[in-house]
Amino acid sequence: MAKLSIVFHGRNASTFHDGFEDLLDNKHSITILPDVLSDAEMQSSYEDADVIIGTANSAELPFPKKLRLFQVAGAGSDGVDPSCLPKGATVCNCYGHDQPISEYVMATILNTRIPIIDANARLRQGDWAYQSGRSLHGEISGSVIGLVGYGHISQTIAKCAKVFGMKIYVCNRSPVPCGDLVDHYFPIDDLLGFLSDVDFVVSALPLTDQTSGLLNKEAFEAMKSTAFFCNVGRGPVVDEKALYEALKRGKIANAAIDTWYVYPSADNDSPQPSRYAFNELTNLVMTPHMSGWTQGTIDRRRQAMAENINRLATGAQLENVVNEGG
Amino acid sequence: MAKLSIVFHGRNASTFHDGFEDLLDNKHSITILPDVLSDAEMQSSYEDADVIIGTANSAELPFPKKLRLFQVAGAGSDGVDPSCLPKGATVCNCYGHDQPISEYVMATILNTRIPIIDANARLRQGDWAYQSGRSLHGEISGSVIGLVGYGHISQTIAKCAKVFGMKIYVCNRSPVPCGDLVDHYFPIDDLLGFLSDVDFVVSALPLTDQTSGLLNKEAFEAMKSTAFFCNVGRGPVVDEKALYEALKRGKIANAAIDTWYVYPSADNDSPQPSRYAFNELTNLVMTPHMSGWTQGTIDRRRQAMAENINRLATGAQLENVVNEGG
Repeated sequence: MAKLSIVFHGRNASTFHDGFEDLLDNKHSITILPDVLSDAEMQSSYEDADVIIGTANSAELPFPKKLRLFQVAGAGSDGVDPSCLPKGATVCNCYGHDQPISEYVMATILNTRIPIIDANARLRQGDWAYQSGRSLHGEISGSVIGLVGYGHISQTIAKCAKVFGMKIYVCNRSPVPCGDLVDHYFPIDDLLGFLSDVDFVVSALPLTDQTSGLLNKEAFEAMKSTAFFCNVGRGPVVDEKALYEALKRGKIANAAIDTWYVYPSADNDSPQPSRYAFNELTNLVMTPHMSGWTQGTIDRRRQAMAENINRLATGAQLENVVNEGG
Repeated sequence: MAKLSIVFHGRNASTFHDGFEDLLDNKHSITILPDVLSDAEMQSSYEDADVIIGTANSAELPFPKKLRLFQVAGAGSDGVDPSCLPKGATVCNCYGHDQPISEYVMATILNTRIPIIDANARLRQGDWAYQSGRSLHGEISGSVIGLVGYGHISQTIAKCAKVFGMKIYVCNRSPVPCGDLVDHYFPIDDLLGFLSDVDFVVSALPLTDQTSGLLNKEAFEAMKSTAFFCNVGRGPVVDEKALYEALKRGKIANAAIDTWYVYPSADNDSPQPSRYAFNELTNLVMTPHMSGWTQGTIDRRRQAMAENINRLATGAQLENVVNEGG
């Protein structure tokens, strides 16, 4: 069996290196490279790799002429440009983040209804404002969660939301059968009707030509003024200005945004995540693309990626293929 | 059918008054009284009531000599002293709070693992510390929730926790069958063994002679140093000093405490909830006995209490009897 040259490229991918070799059936050569390949040796490692584990590539990186597998260290493959890969290279992704993302979504939804932070601050001052008999808070039971898209993540969220007594509405390109789990399916053509009917809108969509800017000004205007919006998919699925305006003008009540428009780069490690001043708004929770990022996700993805390399080494069918190569 | 004289006593009970009459099958006399009966007319209304809807009584109140039903406006009947009621009076309670309390418990548990507040504060400053590839947070999937007692509330929590992939351990006086929902049952004699095995300890116990001080110093010493403790039952089930010391000295990691040792009174409307300075500790969430207090709970309890009065009026069997009277 051929010894493969495996490159972990970038900070995200390098997280998976510890313990990775133990999961490989054979001895291969493993190199860890930073995001920016600052010397000739790094560039040549990248150029000669059989397998790259990474989250993005670009024309600024060396052309990996022998590449057979670009293994995305996550679900979103929108950072990978197939035109910068040789014809024989297959692009695969991996999952394992559905559970923690569901936990994040349910936590942010619950936190909109239970004023734990304010109650805690007040009681420490002897203020019992939220005590039973004084004021009421909300419950999520009986309210409607609207899932835009119905992939791995949305399906896991649906199960969690259902057990709390929420109704599950799904808007998806392909039909989703209603039954014990899903209460109502809307075709994507009826996105606006769907949005006007739900209390909590959750987008877990990947970024594609079809989804880019899907949630636009019209979409936010269709939502209830009491609606909560959560984006755990990809930032640009949501029109940046429309989201900002909807929150600033109170067209919707609140939001939790985990996926953004501007990310840290080699030039700026601590940018604001948008050209709009979301940081000046108080009706949203801003988190730095962290919802899926747990030890559990690392463990599950490491296992899945090592398994794909074992398959490559023995000529078996690769799993989670995003792009077959040419 | 006899017209009943119904008294709503106190701030908590009065919350249920709006819309109550619409749920009664017959016309009765309804009086709303404050917690403190400051004049003779109020006192005589209390004294002559057939039904009192309230949360507590005492020897300082007039003796309600004709009383047939003391309907507790909640689950906990520990505020009702049967020796201050006539022999013929039945004490009943009501529920309907299981769902919001489960939501509170799951929110506080999720919040221990997902650093949403800190991440939000940081990202607003351009700090991406929690971004994928930089640092990890936890997930609740795979961890163990330990339910002390297995009544209405714990059973609802169990269903919610299970769908997140948590393991369900129960410690209860009477045996609880293991199966799809409960993974492990511990008899109450093995409380310490149970506590040492779980990651999240939740107490939803009522206050009785058997439960008072059940969670004592020894109990907190048995818990993992990483344990989270949540009390949504009654404060004094947990030894006040032992809880304070466990948090202050880091014997456990953190807590969410909703039920307390000191409550607002006629003398002091804004007391600290304990003689210990919990308000100076940072590893707990302090809330003012609010976890069950939602519009949904009000609606469900109003319905249940009105139904019991309808039953009383027709001589039918009362529901949720706590004390049969003599």
